Amino acid sequence: MNHEAVTVIGMGSMGRALAEAFRAAGHPTTVWNRSPAKAADLVARGAVRAETVADAIAASPLIVVCVLDHDAMYTTLAADEAALAGRTVVNLGSGSPEQAREAAVWAARLGAAYVDGAIMSTPPGIGRPESMLLYSGDAAAFARHVDTLRALGDPLDLGPDAGVASLYDTALLGVMWATLTGWLHGSAVVGADGVKAADFTPIANRWPAHAVTGFIGHYAAQVDAGAYPGDDATLDVHLATMDHLVHASRDRGVDTALPELYRAYTERAITAGHGADGYARVIEGLRG
Amino acid sequence: MNHEAVTVIGMGSMGRALAEAFRAAGHPTTVWNRSPAKAADLVARGAVRAETVADAIAASPLIVVCVLDHDAMYTTLAADEAALAGRTVVNLGSGSPEQAREAAVWAARLGAAYVDGAIMSTPPGIGRPESMLLYSGDAAAFARHVDTLRALGDPLDLGPDAGVASLYDTALLGVMWATLTGWLHGSAVVGADGVKAADFTPIANRWPAHAVTGFIGHYAAQVDAGAYPGDDATLDVHLATMDHLVHASRDRGVDTALPELYRAYTERAITAGHGADGYARVIEGLRG
Ligand SMILES: [Ca+2]
Ligand SMILES: [Ca+2]
Repeated sequence: MNHEAVTVIGMGSMGRALAEAFRAAGHPTTVWNRSPAKAADLVARGAVRAETVADAIAASPLIVVCVLDHDAMYTTLAADEAALAGRTVVNLGSGSPEQAREAAVWAARLGAAYVDGAIMSTPPGIGRPESMLLYSGDAAAFARHVDTLRALGDPLDLGPDAGVASLYDTALLGVMWATLTGWLHGSAVVGADGVKAADFTPIANRWPAHAVTGFIGHYAAQVDAGAYPGDDATLDVHLATMDHLVHASRDRGVDTALPELYRAYTERAITAGHGADGYARVIEGLRG
Repeated sequence: MNHEAVTVIGMGSMGRALAEAFRAAGHPTTVWNRSPAKAADLVARGAVRAETVADAIAASPLIVVCVLDHDAMYTTLAADEAALAGRTVVNLGSGSPEQAREAAVWAARLGAAYVDGAIMSTPPGIGRPESMLLYSGDAAAFARHVDTLRALGDPLDLGPDAGVASLYDTALLGVMWATLTGWLHGSAVVGADGVKAADFTPIANRWPAHAVTGFIGHYAAQVDAGAYPGDDATLDVHLATMDHLVHASRDRGVDTALPELYRAYTERAITAGHGADGYARVIEGLRG
């Protein structure tokens, strides 16, 4: 295997994890950071510290950027922007879909390829094959570098629109917050009757793994079809059981805003005449 | 293996699935329903239809009840309540924790053992070892019948408080609704930019399985300890990234109430001085 050279710009905890994963996979790895001391460990293990951004860019056809935001990326690369011509910038820092699309235009103007990415892992997960990294943007550049990027975790190709990786990122975090908040609420409800979170949680974790993800897979086709047959449970049935949770929460002095919110979505769909539909119908009320 | 006789009262779609699972596992199975026709298929396969509730009770030491609610259970069993003495009633219908605790008192008065249960599966999942059924109540009775109950799916013992199975049931449904609603919201956000739910969903389903359940397992110990070190991501960091989702939703005309709700919980905890804590700290604001 030909080990492509790669440059990592930004040595926060995530940038260091990225550089270490490239280095450990055998890629000649050049690193740059505003404060050079951050790279000391990596350099001791064989990475090369570039003295300047210009040197960092010159060292590799693939420039992976992991700095605070898009402004920090532009400011850093401005030191030798023209040298990006013919290279690929993979931006793994955070930003909005709109910022990613602007960055693709910026890169094109410089003759560089731009791929935007999102890391669905904490730094210790970098380099593990089960960790997901999402990429979207220049398709040819992604194809050229995907074997190198595989050193970071499983690289998922979300297509040529540079904004999509970032959009998935924020939407997936939303699923996470919703799930975490639902679990915390459930833990508060059972906790009020003396149940430990350590007892409730293995069951709560087993339930989504074996049931909820199955429902979601089934409902995805309904969402795309715009038809939501209530073949498992109808909104009418959901509403009645949601009332049990609202009451059980209130009786225990536990905040009811979360169950009242999805109860309201459910009731709104029922009022619109969809009580015999399944839960996926709720998306129609969420959309603009 | 000695195949204990079992009676199933209530032949809705779930009651029929329960009786069929007992029958298929080799248990002499007696069934009763207000409308006898509902049991015809089961009887054709070898179950015995009791003519009266009294016959149904007399047939087995284990009486599994799956009727609409607690009132329907009392009304049905009233036909020969005294015959319940020395038997075990396992109630798999729906109801509140308080109703389950009342039922335990009712059964004790009759000299019967009471176990309350919750079925975390749809009827087609009954009989599969990965399906979870939750039980709480009379510990000796549960131990006596657990091998029979295993025919329905994995029987989980939640201890002697009859109310706990029902409380887990409603709390777990809450985790499900929160997760489903979060996934529908995420699907609406990416859908606004043309991404199909069928493309988003496999990634959304993989993300909880490999990451979110890990966080939850880690946070459960924090909830029980009442200490929430922000060792992965702090509430301050969560708040900033939640703002991205609120904005991305609003820009796309997608309802923002769900992200605004957990954003408000997060902000409340930060305002109370816990910005450096992790997300599990939010439970303190949910509790009464
Ligand atoms: Ca990104
Ligand atoms: Ca129940």
